[in-house]
Amino acid sequence: MANPFHQHLNELNDLLVDMARRVGAAMEQATAALLEGDTVAAEAVVAGDQEVNALQFKVDDRIIALMTQYDAVASDLRFVLGAVRISVDLERMGDLAKHVAKSVLLRAPVAVIPDSLRLDFAAMGAAAVRISEKLVGILRDHDELQAAQMGLDDDELDAVQDRIHAQLPTLGYGPQTAVDVALLARFYERFGDHAVRVSHQVVYAVTGDVHLDRS
Amino acid sequence: MANPFHQHLNELNDLLVDMARRVGAAMEQATAALLEGDTVAAEAVVAGDQEVNALQFKVDDRIIALMTQYDAVASDLRFVLGAVRISVDLERMGDLAKHVAKSVLLRAPVAVIPDSLRLDFAAMGAAAVRISEKLVGILRDHDELQAAQMGLDDDELDAVQDRIHAQLPTLGYGPQTAVDVALLARFYERFGDHAVRVSHQVVYAVTGDVHLDRS
Repeated sequence: MANPFHQHLNELNDLLVDMARRVGAAMEQATAALLEGDTVAAEAVVAGDQEVNALQFKVDDRIIALMTQYDAVASDLRFVLGAVRISVDLERMGDLAKHVAKSVLLRAPVAVIPDSLRLDFAAMGAAAVRISEKLVGILRDHDELQAAQMGLDDDELDAVQDRIHAQLPTLGYGPQTAVDVALLARFYERFGDHAVRVSHQVVYAVTGDVHLDRS
Repeated sequence: MANPFHQHLNELNDLLVDMARRVGAAMEQATAALLEGDTVAAEAVVAGDQEVNALQFKVDDRIIALMTQYDAVASDLRFVLGAVRISVDLERMGDLAKHVAKSVLLRAPVAVIPDSLRLDFAAMGAAAVRISEKLVGILRDHDELQAAQMGLDDDELDAVQDRIHAQLPTLGYGPQTAVDVALLARFYERFGDHAVRVSHQVVYAVTGDVHLDRS
């Protein structure tokens, strides 16, 4: 990507990479807050989400500048459309990290999750962070092969959520805890789903192959 | 909008109106399936979601054709960016209707929601349908004033969800029912949130005023 237009596309892509880094870090911090009942960390996640939202506006402005400044060909436009969708999914991933943090603040000083599920949520948090790190690589390198693998990485989040939801009736928790746990598990599962959508958008942007993109 | 470019923008907008009509009808049918335990209706909602997804691909193709065919100015591009985001939110609203339908199928022949919550979910379903009808009007007429009101219409969905989540610990349901109910209420609440995002995107597309757009 040598010419000015593609230089600007690279800068647009850098904004997406920055968003992916931030939402991954936010979910990591939100998980620590969840496991440790750390309200300071939770507040930081909530506050930091504004910066992710601001980056999405920057993406829009950059795209409008690009489109008004240059005549783009279809493949460039496919990348640009993908960039819009990717920024939407990344912004949503930031929201989901914020939801985890807010549930910590909502129940504090009481722990949101029972001790017996700490390992499951630690596993979901670790999987979410791994997915985020892969996502940064996929966005930076446009690695289609890695992107095609993201669905597999996401399976662990689905599996843990399914296990938690299946166990809930038998674990003897009250309805409030059951609901908190079910929603928290869903936030992590959705985080993974959006990461998979982003990786599919990268494939779309690079190859125009969209059939993976929506379920 | 007289010239060929704006004629094509209108056709793009028609695709979004069609998506909004379909997701509203899907949530209406999903709610009927939920309240009546109608698995045939639920299956129809699940099957129909594919058509909504297909419309989103049409939106992409139309946008790429538009951008390659014409030199657009910033205000047109703002509309196009809004159209991409709107199609993402509408597609997601279709998914949420599908989630409601799938939860009916998952528990059939047992009812997913207890009788004591039928009225609450009937209210959420009715609010979701009203919001969808407003959304069709907003997309068709680009009525900023109506769009600015969507947030208020959404409040009822939030209120019912909050009431349901708050009551759950006291209603004596088992954890499985509590989880099903909590997730179902969330599907309706999210449906409303996406409708509000779409209405904000219309404001963005028409005025460039984005500060309403993300939370």
